[in-house]
Formats: sequence, C-alpha cells, structure tokens
Amino acid sequence: MKSALSLARTSYTQVLKRPTLLPLKSLGYRGLHHQPALKDSSCNANNSPTSSNPPLSFPCIDKMESRTLELDSGPEPSYDNIVTGYEKFEYPHPFLLDHGGILPKIDIAYETWGTLNAKKDNAILIHTGLSASSHARSHAKNTKPGWWESFIGPSAHIDTNKFFVICTNALGGCYGSTGPSSIDPADGERYATRFPIITVFDMIRAQFKLLDHLGIDKLHASVGSSMGGMQSIAAAKLFPDRVKRLISISACARSHPYSIALRHTQRQVLMADPNWNKGFYYKGIPPHVGMKLAREIATISYRSGPEWELRFGRKRSNENQSPALCPDFLIETYLDHQGERFCLQYDPNSLLYISKAMDMFDMSRSESEKLQRQRQHNLPKIEQILKHRQQLERPDEEDARIMAEACRSIIGTQSALEGKQEEKNMSAKPAEDKKNRLTTLSSDPATQDLVEGMKGINMPTLVLGVQSDILFPVWQQKEIAECLRASGNNRVTYYELDAMFGHDTFLIDRVSVGGAIKGHLELLDDESV
Amino acid sequence: MKSALSLARTSYTQVLKRPTLLPLKSLGYRGLHHQPALKDSSCNANNSPTSSNPPLSFPCIDKMESRTLELDSGPEPSYDNIVTGYEKFEYPHPFLLDHGGILPKIDIAYETWGTLNAKKDNAILIHTGLSASSHARSHAKNTKPGWWESFIGPSAHIDTNKFFVICTNALGGCYGSTGPSSIDPADGERYATRFPIITVFDMIRAQFKLLDHLGIDKLHASVGSSMGGMQSIAAAKLFPDRVKRLISISACARSHPYSIALRHTQRQVLMADPNWNKGFYYKGIPPHVGMKLAREIATISYRSGPEWELRFGRKRSNENQSPALCPDFLIETYLDHQGERFCLQYDPNSLLYISKAMDMFDMSRSESEKLQRQRQHNLPKIEQILKHRQQLERPDEEDARIMAEACRSIIGTQSALEGKQEEKNMSAKPAEDKKNRLTTLSSDPATQDLVEGMKGINMPTLVLGVQSDILFPVWQQKEIAECLRASGNNRVTYYELDAMFGHDTFLIDRVSVGGAIKGHLELLDDESV
Repeated sequence: MKSALSLARTSYTQVLKRPTLLPLKSLGYRGLHHQPALKDSSCNANNSPTSSNPPLSFPCIDKMESRTLELDSGPEPSYDNIVTGYEKFEYPHPFLLDHGGILPKIDIAYETWGTLNAKKDNAILIHTGLSASSHARSHAKNTKPGWWESFIGPSAHIDTNKFFVICTNALGGCYGSTGPSSIDPADGERYATRFPIITVFDMIRAQFKLLDHLGIDKLHASVGSSMGGMQSIAAAKLFPDRVKRLISISACARSHPYSIALRHTQRQVLMADPNWNKGFYYKGIPPHVGMKLAREIATISYRSGPEWELRFGRKRSNENQSPALCPDFLIETYLDHQGERFCLQYDPNSLLYISKAMDMFDMSRSESEKLQRQRQHNLPKIEQILKHRQQLERPDEEDARIMAEACRSIIGTQSALEGKQEEKNMSAKPAEDKKNRLTTLSSDPATQDLVEGMKGINMPTLVLGVQSDILFPVWQQKEIAECLRASGNNRVTYYELDAMFGHDTFLIDRVSVGGAIKGHLELLDDESV
Repeated sequence: MKSALSLARTSYTQVLKRPTLLPLKSLGYRGLHHQPALKDSSCNANNSPTSSNPPLSFPCIDKMESRTLELDSGPEPSYDNIVTGYEKFEYPHPFLLDHGGILPKIDIAYETWGTLNAKKDNAILIHTGLSASSHARSHAKNTKPGWWESFIGPSAHIDTNKFFVICTNALGGCYGSTGPSSIDPADGERYATRFPIITVFDMIRAQFKLLDHLGIDKLHASVGSSMGGMQSIAAAKLFPDRVKRLISISACARSHPYSIALRHTQRQVLMADPNWNKGFYYKGIPPHVGMKLAREIATISYRSGPEWELRFGRKRSNENQSPALCPDFLIETYLDHQGERFCLQYDPNSLLYISKAMDMFDMSRSESEKLQRQRQHNLPKIEQILKHRQQLERPDEEDARIMAEACRSIIGTQSALEGKQEEKNMSAKPAEDKKNRLTTLSSDPATQDLVEGMKGINMPTLVLGVQSDILFPVWQQKEIAECLRASGNNRVTYYELDAMFGHDTFLIDRVSVGGAIKGHLELLDDESV
C-alpha cells in the first residue's frame, strides 16, 4: 500500500476510469444538451439506442486504467529487484559533474566475467546502451541471460578465456549505480529531479574510479554500442593512455538533431504523464503510461522498416475483428507489448537524465573546452565542501584520504585540460596538411571542430555502423571514422553492415557484429599498427 | 465558460498544477519520510537547504498547465472558425461506409479556383494530406494563403487559366466536412467516438457525390500528396472511367508497418491524455497536451535528418542557459512550437479516424474484395433504413429521391464488384506474361496480390517520391509504379527526388514537385499514350 501522498496522485486513474464506472448517460453526456431526435434517427434502426452508430470501445485505455489501479494498491515498484547479483563499488567522496552538480558519494554496480591476469592488462570494459544493466551475461549469482549473452563467454566473440570482462550500470541508471532513484544523503530522500544533470564524460569518470579500485591501469579495450559507443569514444578521449583499443558500434561523435528529436518526444510524453509529477513519483503511482508511450517511440527508433515489413507486414492481431483505434495491426500490438514490458522495469527519471546526456554528447573541441572551463570554475566547490567537513569533524586519517582523493580528482582534470591547451596551440597554426587528408568530410567549421576534438585518440579503433539504423545513421559512423583519421589516427577500421535490424542490430546479429568485435580484440599488436 | 461536465475533467490540470500551487514540502514530500540529515549534508554548502543539488525547473510543464487553465475558463475551441470561406455540399441521404457504419447524411466542404468549361472536362480534383482543409489557395472569400498557395493559380503549376481546380476537406475532417466533431442527427450530440470507422475509399465516394452534384462526369486529373496520393490512386481504382490522369506524390499503394507504427504512437499519446476522455471532450477541456505530443511525433516523421542537420545542427535555444530536461536544443523548441501551433487547430478525433484510415489503406486485390463483401453484406441496412423512414412518413417525392439515390449507391457498388469478379476470372489463368514483366518487384504472394489489385488503373500516371522521406519511403513509390506497370499500365512516369525536406517536400519544393505536376497535367493527349 502507498503512503497518503499516493491518494493525491490517483486523479489520472479517476479520469480514466470515469467512462467505465459511470456510463456516459449518467455523466450527463446526453442530458446536458439533449435534443429531440431528428428525422434521420431512422438510421438508428440496427444500432445503439442513442446514436447513428455504436460507440467504439477502447480496451487499450481500460487496460492502462487497470494497471493504474493495481499500482495504487500494490507495493512500490523496486528496480533493485529487477537486476540482482552484481557487485557494488562505493566511492565515498564528493564527485564533481561536468555541469556543476556534485554527488556527495557514488555507487557503481558492476559484473565481471573471466579472470584478471597477473599483469592486469587483459581487462575489457563494456559500456551499455541507455537503459541496460551491468548484466551483460549470466553467471552464478544471476543465471538469467544477459543483454549480450551470446557475445561474451569462453571462446565467444568477447572471449572470457582470454579476457577479464567488466560491465557497469551507468551513472544515472537505476540498477545499482547512483541515479535519480538513489537516496540523497543530504536529507535521506530520493534525489528525483534534484539529481544534477550528468554527461557521458561523467559516466566515464565514474567507471574509471572503479578501474582504479580494481587496480586496472590500462584496458585492453573499451567496447560499446549505442550510448555505449559514445562512452567508448569518451573513455579514449579522457584517458587516452588507459585505453589500448577502441570499439564503437552504432554510436556517434556528436548527437544530431534528428536523434535529439526522437529522444525529445520520449521525454515529453513521459513528463506529460500527470503521475510523473515533476519527477517526484517514488511514493505514488509511477508514470507507467508515459513510460509505455516513451518505449513505443523508442522502439520505432531502434528497429527498421524492412525488418517490420518482413516480420509483420500488414497482418492484423485478429483478422476477424472490426478495425479499431486501439492496437489493431500486429505491429501495433508488438509496440504495445514492448511498451508494457518496459514501463515498470526502468526508472523514468533515469530515462530522462541519461537520454539528455546522450543529446548533449559532442566530441567537438569547443564543447570539450567549455566543459573543462566549467569544471575549473566548479572545482573550488569541492574544496569548500571538504573544508566544511573538516570544520565539522576532527581531521583524522579518513578525512585526509578524502582530501587526497579530491586532489587526485582535481589533478586528473587539470591534466586533461593541459592536453586541451596543447591542442589549442597546435591548431593555431594553419593545418594545411590535415585539410588535405579530409576525404568525404565537409570542411565546414563544425566538422573541423569535431576533428580537433577527436585528437589524441590514436589507439587501434573499430567503428561499425548499420545501414538501416535511423537513430545513429551510417553517416554518423562514417563521421567518427573520418574525423579520427583526419585528426591523425591511422589505425581506424570502418565496417558498414547491411543488416535489417536497424539500431538494435548490435543486440541481434552475432555473426556480423560479434565477428567484427572478435577480430578487433584479438588482433596481434603488430597487426594493429 | 464550460458546462458543469468540464469541472469533472480538470483533474489533469489539478495534478499538473499541484507542484506549483503546493510546494513539495506541504505535500509531505519531506515530511513523510524525513530523516535527520546525514554526515554528507556538508555537500549542501552552496546549494538548496534540503538537497545536495538544487531541483531542476520545468517551464514546459508549467506552460501546459497554464494552457489547461486558460482552456478551462475560455470559450470552447471551434474548428469552424479556423478555416472559412468554403462552399458546403450537403448530401442528405444515408451514406454506407466500407466497414458497415452508416452516416445519415454527409456534408463535404470544398473550394474551387478557375472556371469549369462548357464541356466540363477541365476539372482537377486535389486530395489533401491528413489534417489539411479545402483551402489549398487564397481567394476572395478567404484571402489567407492556402497550403498549396504557390502551386495553384493563373499560369502556376496547376494553371487556373486552363483548369477548374477543386479541393475538398476529407470526410472525417473538421473543416466543414462531416467528421467526429459533427452533430449526429440521431440525437443532436456530436458524434465523438460514436463516429464509425472510415476508409480512404469512403472519402473518395463522398468526393464523387460532390462531382455528381457539380455535373462533372470525368476529371482531367486526380492529384494528391501523402494521404492525398492514396486517395488519388483509390479514385482511379473506384472510378477508372472518371479519371483521365493520375498523380500520386509521396504516397503508397498500401501502408507499411513502419508508417503504421509512427501513426500508432501519435494516436496512443493522444488517447492517453485524460482530457481525451474516450473521445467525449467537446464540452470539456480538449486534449491539447496529447495533440501537442502527437504533432511533435508527426513532425519527426514529416521532415528529415539532413534538413535538420543544416537548419538546427546542435544549436541550443539559449547557449547561456544550463542544460535542462525541458526543450533546450533548438530542434526541441522547434518541435515544441510545431506542437503548440497545432494542438488547438485540428479536431483530435479527426486525427484518430483519418490516421486510422491511412493505416488501413491497401490496394491489394484481397483487401478490396473483402471490403466489397462487407459492403454487399451491409447494403440491406440502407434499404431497412429507408423502409423504416417510409413507415414513419408518407411516401413523397423527397423519399423517392432518397430511394433512388440508395439504389444508385447500390448499383455503383455492384458494378465495381462485377469488375472484381472479372479480374478474378482473369487471374485464374496462369499469368505467365505478367510475371515476365515484373522487374525489381518481388514475386511473393503479397506483391502479386497488390499487382492484381492495381488492375484497371490504366490512365497516364505520375508517381513521385522523395529519397529523404521516412514515412512514405521511395521504395513505396517504386512499388506503386512497378505494380501499375505489372498490372498492365504502360503510361507510368516515375520520378525520384533527392530533396532533403523528407515527406513534406511536396509542400515546399515548388520547382521539382510543381514542375513534375505541370508537365504531367499539360501533356498533350497523344504524348501521354
């Protein structure tokens, strides 16, 4: 049962259920403006007693209403129960974010497969898509299949006989890592939309705190698809000396407006659900309707026309039923089902924050510099916090460690900043030779800015795109590859697949996607030069 | 001010405005689970007094809430005022629909430009897209620019010095033609979702009643884009002897699942708005939030990535503002604006019914035959209605005319049906010669079914598609052209444009789209053979 607050949040249910509980007549639908039936009421002969034709029914609306009622009387949905068996790394220090927010502490949920070797140089970090957990593959503590189950394992494409594979739940997520549904230590309440804006770079900094904790200095590879592909590139940029190989699948170097538009509509439908309540729904009914709708839109952006043409064509869910405004064609019941399956499986606020982080992702030099300036501006806040703490407590060993950590955090940022400054000096000279190497790349300032921003990513890189992807179209994959080449990386491999599964191909096409990954991970060092 | 009923429908507003009117504290947000601040509250130093970071603001939610409040106290929105200056054709007889519904009478709003010649053979019928009115071009009675303003006029692409141009508001619409917002004569109330399901073929039958009324036996051309292109093909199929030339732009011969999915999500977000109230919102607050969201999704399907890349890129609406979950990038404020502009301009129920008619559009022979069987099955209803009327009233001249019309309607259907039967007999023979003519067309049964369904459309035809269109992709345009050719039409012209405006190119690209139309309309008769 919910708290008293939830009662105030049931209005949506009440509105929805009105037509069911109260017949239209008793609502005064006819009563208010009722007029004597006109001559043409003879058309009524075979229909309902009041209208020319019978009213349509809306089982899809009734179903949403039932779920609202169930949620009102059922237990609070917990995302912790959805994914289990992960490890949790607790970083107990203030964590500065790119846009000025500070998390007092962060948790990162992670799972591993395979064994870290003595040299600690066989680790592969897998970055996930928007809503995925750290459960990329099954293991003893959680035997459910993972989201990349068949790609990872002994002798699989990501071979756990050779590699120590790590996957985390992204910062901002809800499957064990700190996110909007976590408790704000400041007042013991969930963050909700008091959670600060995060970036893909913030996610990477959090992951590398975990790598520090595991004693891993250098990754054999950073691997990711979709948002994970953005993260993979971001990791190579922030920590170029700690990433030996880079794989980015169906991602981009900067989000383009069409993909922003697709995510924008998902956020808007979610936020328009009254139960979202500006993010403060944790004690009430979750915005399951908004989440369902958001997932349906997302599914359209994840799949492709040709696949659905083959899979669903124009089949209807029940050929004998009259056409309806509720789901009717098989493609509609499929989308409906996708939405329903997801609507209580993922924290709505996590969706908003992480989807926004994807929109903001931009490897351009100007954007990186802006974020660096912001970090510099906000660093004193961390010092202030630590000083404040010292005033509250006796300085002891624990506090010293905090201070040390804070310094390390500051130094890490400074060195990245120095790297930027160096680039700035370089680009002050006319870069004629670079321009000559741009092939299909545009020479407009925005592209040049991106080329400059990709500098320093010089490890062997695999970029893979899918021709039927509308969310991260192949021209964006080509852009990654060409910008890397133009910025000086001469070890870039670019594959374009003609698979028909759209953006989701990376989850499905074991042979083509898995094969490319394996090939790149297992290249001999001298082959990859 | 609204009726008493509207009070019961304000719950959405109440939910939305709660966060504004009642601060979270007074809602018990902290009160219920308040715990003493933990050690880490030191992170609070520079932030709000209760949380680690300040809460985000949501001006986009506040704005929707304000509109709800305004609508609650303002006058009922009327779609009649949005478009004015049209003529209205009243067909005062029962009108049988493909899926068995019967409209006691129908109105068709229309506008004309140019002059009908003495032979009455220079008429061009323009079919609109989903939500357009009959106002394709300005004229004395309505001087506002129309939706195809620059395409129609003296010496324009559709030359009113030569042609008599007619445009109608589609059956099911809200700009003067009978639709869900019209009054059901049976009880004097608006139809709402007591309106029966309609098809594109029903729209055509209604338009041809208008042509009968105008004394136009044969059109010089049937011209349409998007849904109008479907209608254009449907007109040529239902009335092959009354259409001399056919133009179909950015349409299809049958809706594919990806386009159904895009329309499905629009319908779902609209229907999920509590103010939609299963379609009975006319006396309450209209579902402006659902309409806004539906339009934003539609806009994504109407435009293209390359266009937005050039037009918006990654520009933000205010570069100095912190990133926000409400519209932030310029593409988001653009979508937001498109949604707001539309949300009170078009009847939500019209959107549902017409969008559904588009989903169902399928020129396949099996589908046509199914609809014909349904019509035959339902025809007795019309007779029953008329008999019932005779029993109620003295048989007079008026009733006789009704009877005659009903017969004519029946005969019209029968002849179409006979045509079908003839085709059936033809296709019973092995059609080896036809198969040989299929070039890039698939030989699967669904495609063969479509080829069979396109038979009889033998007039000179122009099919035009745009490569950046994701809603009606070029493969669907190619499908129309090739199915027509395979079904025996040897006068099919197929143009594929590389324009970057996506589906909306037909509204924008005067030179390429307008030029193709003009060329086809003004071909000499002997050139078009």
